[in-house]
Amino acid sequence: MFISINQLANELPKDKPNNLAANALQEGLGGQFGEMRTMMQYLFQNFNFRGKAKQYRDLIKSVASEEIGHVELISTTINMLLEGTTENAPPNELPLKPALNAGNIHHFLVGAQSAMPVDSVGNPWSGSYVYNSGNLVLDLIYNLMLECTGRLQKCRLYAMSDNKTFRATVSYLIVRDLAHEKVFAKALESLGVNWGKTLPVPKADSSKMPEVRELEKRNLHNQQWTFSNEPSQLGEIFNGSSPFGDGEVEALDGLPQGFEIPQAPEAPQEYSPGLDRALKQMAEAKLPK
Amino acid sequence: MFISINQLANELPKDKPNNLAANALQEGLGGQFGEMRTMMQYLFQNFNFRGKAKQYRDLIKSVASEEIGHVELISTTINMLLEGTTENAPPNELPLKPALNAGNIHHFLVGAQSAMPVDSVGNPWSGSYVYNSGNLVLDLIYNLMLECTGRLQKCRLYAMSDNKTFRATVSYLIVRDLAHEKVFAKALESLGVNWGKTLPVPKADSSKMPEVRELEKRNLHNQQWTFSNEPSQLGEIFNGSSPFGDGEVEALDGLPQGFEIPQAPEAPQEYSPGLDRALKQMAEAKLPK
Amino acid sequence: MFISINQLANELPKDKPNNLAANALQEGLGGQFGEMRTMMQYLFQNFNFRGKAKQYRDLIKSVASEEIGHVELISTTINMLLEGTTENAPPNELPLKPALNAGNIHHFLVGAQSAMPVDSVGNPWSGSYVYNSGNLVLDLIYNLMLECTGRLQKCRLYAMSDNKTFRATVSYLIVRDLAHEKVFAKALESLGVNWGKTLPVPKADSSKMPEVRELEKRNLHNQQWTFSNEPSQLGEIFNGSSPFGDGEVEALDGLPQGFEIPQAPEAPQEYSPGLDRALKQMAEAKLPK
Amino acid sequence: MFISINQLANELPKDKPNNLAANALQEGLGGQFGEMRTMMQYLFQNFNFRGKAKQYRDLIKSVASEEIGHVELISTTINMLLEGTTENAPPNELPLKPALNAGNIHHFLVGAQSAMPVDSVGNPWSGSYVYNSGNLVLDLIYNLMLECTGRLQKCRLYAMSDNKTFRATVSYLIVRDLAHEKVFAKALESLGVNWGKTLPVPKADSSKMPEVRELEKRNLHNQQWTFSNEPSQLGEIFNGSSPFGDGEVEALDGLPQGFEIPQAPEAPQEYSPGLDRALKQMAEAKLPK
Amino acid sequence: MFISINQLANELPKDKPNNLAANALQEGLGGQFGEMRTMMQYLFQNFNFRGKAKQYRDLIKSVASEEIGHVELISTTINMLLEGTTENAPPNELPLKPALNAGNIHHFLVGAQSAMPVDSVGNPWSGSYVYNSGNLVLDLIYNLMLECTGRLQKCRLYAMSDNKTFRATVSYLIVRDLAHEKVFAKALESLGVNWGKTLPVPKADSSKMPEVRELEKRNLHNQQWTFSNEPSQLGEIFNGSSPFGDGEVEALDGLPQGFEIPQAPEAPQEYSPGLDRALKQMAEAKLPK
Amino acid sequence: MFISINQLANELPKDKPNNLAANALQEGLGGQFGEMRTMMQYLFQNFNFRGKAKQYRDLIKSVASEEIGHVELISTTINMLLEGTTENAPPNELPLKPALNAGNIHHFLVGAQSAMPVDSVGNPWSGSYVYNSGNLVLDLIYNLMLECTGRLQKCRLYAMSDNKTFRATVSYLIVRDLAHEKVFAKALESLGVNWGKTLPVPKADSSKMPEVRELEKRNLHNQQWTFSNEPSQLGEIFNGSSPFGDGEVEALDGLPQGFEIPQAPEAPQEYSPGLDRALKQMAEAKLPK
Repeated sequence: MFISINQLANELPKDKPNNLAANALQEGLGGQFGEMRTMMQYLFQNFNFRGKAKQYRDLIKSVASEEIGHVELISTTINMLLEGTTENAPPNELPLKPALNAGNIHHFLVGAQSAMPVDSVGNPWSGSYVYNSGNLVLDLIYNLMLECTGRLQKCRLYAMSDNKTFRATVSYLIVRDLAHEKVFAKALESLGVNWGKTLPVPKADSSKMPEVRELEKRNLHNQQWTFSNEPSQLGEIFNGSSPFGDGEVEALDGLPQGFEIPQAPEAPQEYSPGLDRALKQMAEAKLPK
Repeated sequence: MFISINQLANELPKDKPNNLAANALQEGLGGQFGEMRTMMQYLFQNFNFRGKAKQYRDLIKSVASEEIGHVELISTTINMLLEGTTENAPPNELPLKPALNAGNIHHFLVGAQSAMPVDSVGNPWSGSYVYNSGNLVLDLIYNLMLECTGRLQKCRLYAMSDNKTFRATVSYLIVRDLAHEKVFAKALESLGVNWGKTLPVPKADSSKMPEVRELEKRNLHNQQWTFSNEPSQLGEIFNGSSPFGDGEVEALDGLPQGFEIPQAPEAPQEYSPGLDRALKQMAEAKLPK
Repeated sequence: MFISINQLANELPKDKPNNLAANALQEGLGGQFGEMRTMMQYLFQNFNFRGKAKQYRDLIKSVASEEIGHVELISTTINMLLEGTTENAPPNELPLKPALNAGNIHHFLVGAQSAMPVDSVGNPWSGSYVYNSGNLVLDLIYNLMLECTGRLQKCRLYAMSDNKTFRATVSYLIVRDLAHEKVFAKALESLGVNWGKTLPVPKADSSKMPEVRELEKRNLHNQQWTFSNEPSQLGEIFNGSSPFGDGEVEALDGLPQGFEIPQAPEAPQEYSPGLDRALKQMAEAKLPK
Repeated sequence: MFISINQLANELPKDKPNNLAANALQEGLGGQFGEMRTMMQYLFQNFNFRGKAKQYRDLIKSVASEEIGHVELISTTINMLLEGTTENAPPNELPLKPALNAGNIHHFLVGAQSAMPVDSVGNPWSGSYVYNSGNLVLDLIYNLMLECTGRLQKCRLYAMSDNKTFRATVSYLIVRDLAHEKVFAKALESLGVNWGKTLPVPKADSSKMPEVRELEKRNLHNQQWTFSNEPSQLGEIFNGSSPFGDGEVEALDGLPQGFEIPQAPEAPQEYSPGLDRALKQMAEAKLPK
Repeated sequence: MFISINQLANELPKDKPNNLAANALQEGLGGQFGEMRTMMQYLFQNFNFRGKAKQYRDLIKSVASEEIGHVELISTTINMLLEGTTENAPPNELPLKPALNAGNIHHFLVGAQSAMPVDSVGNPWSGSYVYNSGNLVLDLIYNLMLECTGRLQKCRLYAMSDNKTFRATVSYLIVRDLAHEKVFAKALESLGVNWGKTLPVPKADSSKMPEVRELEKRNLHNQQWTFSNEPSQLGEIFNGSSPFGDGEVEALDGLPQGFEIPQAPEAPQEYSPGLDRALKQMAEAKLPK
Repeated sequence: MFISINQLANELPKDKPNNLAANALQEGLGGQFGEMRTMMQYLFQNFNFRGKAKQYRDLIKSVASEEIGHVELISTTINMLLEGTTENAPPNELPLKPALNAGNIHHFLVGAQSAMPVDSVGNPWSGSYVYNSGNLVLDLIYNLMLECTGRLQKCRLYAMSDNKTFRATVSYLIVRDLAHEKVFAKALESLGVNWGKTLPVPKADSSKMPEVRELEKRNLHNQQWTFSNEPSQLGEIFNGSSPFGDGEVEALDGLPQGFEIPQAPEAPQEYSPGLDRALKQMAEAKLPK
């Protein structure tokens, strides 16, 4: 089972609305190499794990559980980027006219200016993305490649917009994807692979990415929490020097300190939540005193 | 964020392997009205919630978090049903020959006899299933309909096999789907709907379903946990008499007592986990003393 | 606009249930070359028609309107073939057990033993099937090819089962697809093509298909109704000798005489319609005296 | 069977071309909650109806038949909106250059500036959209939700463009979707549900939508025709006061008065219909004197 | 088996980058009527050919083999059109910002500014496109229609941009599609069809397409090579006068003279190939002296 | 460009028909990790290659070109396995009745008992399978993983049937996939990775697979041809000791000796090729003397 912790993985500064950046970020949410995919792939690999080498199961499970929170983080970020696209229409202007040119018109027409389980060209997420061969070495190689690809795409996203809300999440995921690259690289090291200088991918220079640099100072690129309430064998694999030669990795129990989850305002132009006076009264009758 | 709790939602008795039943159960996992769908739909509705009527957000979030554990439960059940399909082949028999006639040959050819994010005819799960209009009344009506449909399909599954492992999970989900029907029926009641005698759907007679009856005795059809570590406003809506006239509903903090998660054995005929002697030694070097 | 005529295109004799034949027939309903496809393709070609050669639009429209009734016919046939698969289970037998081995388990698990918009391997019908280039010659060539392919598949279906209900519909569609081949072959003739001996496809010998022979005696393979309440220019093209040398074609106003639409019984094992005593009383209160 | 009536459901005023509005309107045609979906869902529910409560079947069938005409209406509207996008290119301008920036380039590249069975981000319509559980209460709840969602999306479309052609169809469908919400709300009322103030969804204020207001004056939001040539039991359910407190609903035989179907001109830049002089002569030889 | 010939089918002049034109051209690569489709359809028809009329198999095989080179040509063209979109960003500009407004953001985010197996609205290529009924007449009619549709779309593309790189490939394919129309028209002629004046489709006037005219002067619209290292029976069908009355067709052994394949430069902003100094040294150690 | 070589990659012994084995083999043809996928992925990586390290491009191109022949080999094998399923029906038996229970009914209903671009559960091949990040290290890791997964699935297929035709192709591909694993493992070695004992995947014991053993004796597991008519830099990387410690790898110019391509007989029960006497005469008039 799983429980929710009422905190967001990262803090999101408010910036101007940018529906094109919101749409680009959908790739990181519902794209083939986005967070829904890592979440579901690792959950299935965890549920379907075979054999006694439980330390690998625990390792996969810890990343799987973290990824659910990344789906939350990236959805919330998309919502903040969409917020305000249409609400300040001048008096004579049609409120939803910007939707016709938006990155994804579905953000305004199907959803109420909010995140969707689709990629940046509107393809819905597909279960066919999930890879789980059951062969441990192969699943680990795939996961390493998956994290590298995810980080590659986020490094490309970084260069698409400097919107602060967008950058906060993109940078956070660049750092966490790097940590996850290490998790799977270490797991393969424990089975005998020596990566030489090939990793990480991409060879991005974080000294030119100040937001990333800031998070690295907190050592977020070398840590992995268990995201569990119980003892885990994650630390048996995830310890010692980073396979990329950038410090010491460390396994930590539980989860990191989080941040308040933003509350989205009503969007009357979208009929969301769409309660009229009568319904609002009934809803408020239930509110805590 | 979310964390894993190292327990399974229900106890699974061992019975004979039955890959046809395993395949049928895929509908409840990766089907259009299965647990992956409820999980993702409610997660998105939670992340994208608008306005101040937070009690409805908490209500949706509590069910969302429970559903992650249902994905785990149903995956584990499918794995148990597949286990043994091919392992006891007679000496002259080809070990994976049963796969050619299996409910889903992918269980043996793509996965290592384990659950997949697909439905019972092999269609991969799709992000297009997720419904989140942003309109509160509409989302609640949809969710009610979704739980009814999920329960309808499980009642049909119940009549397809009496395998004990299969029945344990199907019955558990019949009961929990009924509880979730109530959650959303109550939410709509709080906004003024009177359901009369129309619900629940289906009007299944649990007195003819002994496994269901047993769970109802534990009142599992009237309870909803918050599946959270923090105070929740779920109880402001989910209280008082059941909208279906079968007792009093109650909101509970945290999560119910769980059960040990089964460990799947190696499947050498599937090369899973596929570690040879050399790799096994390396893997074992990491095991706890 | 369109209106329903309360009659079925063909008469359906009752035979034994045969869910495998029902599944095969799904190809003719929701397959890439099935009736939903011809219906939607011709409707779109009609709605999107350009230019003044209205006789071609009328011709396309008459077939389009007929095809809606074919979707009705084939759905009803599938329903009759499914009826009885599970209802006569012996006392100790699980009522829906046959579903585990069925041609398509969704017939029992998702629908209530009834037709679905999918093909014979379970792929849902797709809008990408519809062809409408806007070029008249090209659209007519495509339509001819489409009718030939539909008829080819039906001739193959004919050889898969001799169930009487199945055969009635398959034979009816073999004859009507032949008529439609002629419709489009004549349209291309009117623009200058001479087909020689290449058509029809397939060169099936109806003297070995007694059910088909019977319908040809009624000249159904040479007639096309307008399926409209108004004058149509269909007859300007569809007249004279058959392009396949088997008689004279004729355009007729309106629609042919139809047959009573069968009424499907309740399926309590599927909870369909699933009204309990209380709901049934309310439903009956509305019945005509 | 079904026949075509040579009239369009609503009158379409001509306005400027607007391919972005045309693309947005595709959601109402081929989107998950568009007219192709309602049409096919109700047709299947009608064909697959079980049991003797024929008044519900007649009710579903009447809406199903109307929806075929809505697919015609919305396709025609998209066509009018596309018309002129490319035809008035200045002499030195490439005729189809606007296609590169269009809402959907397929409108110009795959079709000849005409409607397609896809949604507003280009996803083809899918048979997986059709819902037909066979359980009467459940199918009715789903249909109610579907009409509400369709109307919600149309109210959002209304706020995206004030193009007159676009608005005429969007407003007409807002009104008819409201009527259909009532049809299904009444059907559930007849089985005992009391909707209180929850409906309709959305709570849109038609006093700010003059085109909608105009249609309501004709009482189009309270009427349902049978769209059939035969007696129907629709009126047993659809009578008395509106479940939304806005007048008296009424069931009417047949279909409403319609309007002339516009004829689209040739589009030589699209090679549509693409007949050269020789072919045109042959085509004209068939024209009525 | 197949082998690569280290030459490109056509010469590609360099022009300005144009990502919108690149995206439009994706239809010709991964669209339903693009080169991947013709390639795979003819390969399958060749592999699955039945019966002794080997001249038809050879004819299909020769076009199939040519199409692999067309996939190469069109991919290379898309790459050249994308090249430079982002590389000349001013110092303060974000390098990948143009991606947010691009024809397909995946060109920049998923690929490294290069071609993808998708159409011009981002739908991935699907195996369901491939048509192979096994009936010779029907497969030939389909292939003729397919080539006509491909050419129709390329004629539309021609009118969308005058970029020289784009036009070179579009014109080349207009001419080769015309040759392929003839190949299949002749094959059907050999079985008795007389096409009259209906073909080719579209009736495009190449005198207004100078790039096309130039290629026709080389007689490329009347020639078909075998694209094989062995004798072929192609010439038994493909000889004599063109079915469209524009010269004599001719079958030729082998393949035409080709052109140098362009080498794409590194794209550091995309981390492609992404070798840092250390890896580059290792890679270069392998370079020929 | 590419040309066909009129030879099959491997020799195929005739055995009994087995449509279930044919269907299983579809995974190797049109599955997510089948030969169409490797073919298209490597073709795209070759077309889209960036930078000067041409030896890697040549390496990818050599495997890409080989894979086209594997698509041919596996299609031909499926065809041989299907041949005879229906042709020997007893006099009173329906000829295509076996289709109702077949592994994939489309083999008989849509195709004429021949291979299709779909996987073993009927999902059509998708362009979304193709991976081409543009980052060299990442593409090579992916390709290694892809070959391992392909070989894993073929080792599982090996254990599903001992049909000789089936086994010949499955064994051949096990050996060639192993060679391709080495190709990509060597390429990554050249960039600094040391694989230790982790590869190959799976650790299958070929001493228990006599057909595989036989091919290894010919050293087919250590050789890679250029499948090109020109000099290639493949050998700069693919030389020296196998990364799996099983001999010396070698790069060879051109392609291996092949085998005669089988000719499939007519299938009159499928109307394939479906030429009647008149058409056959015309077709034969073109046959070489």
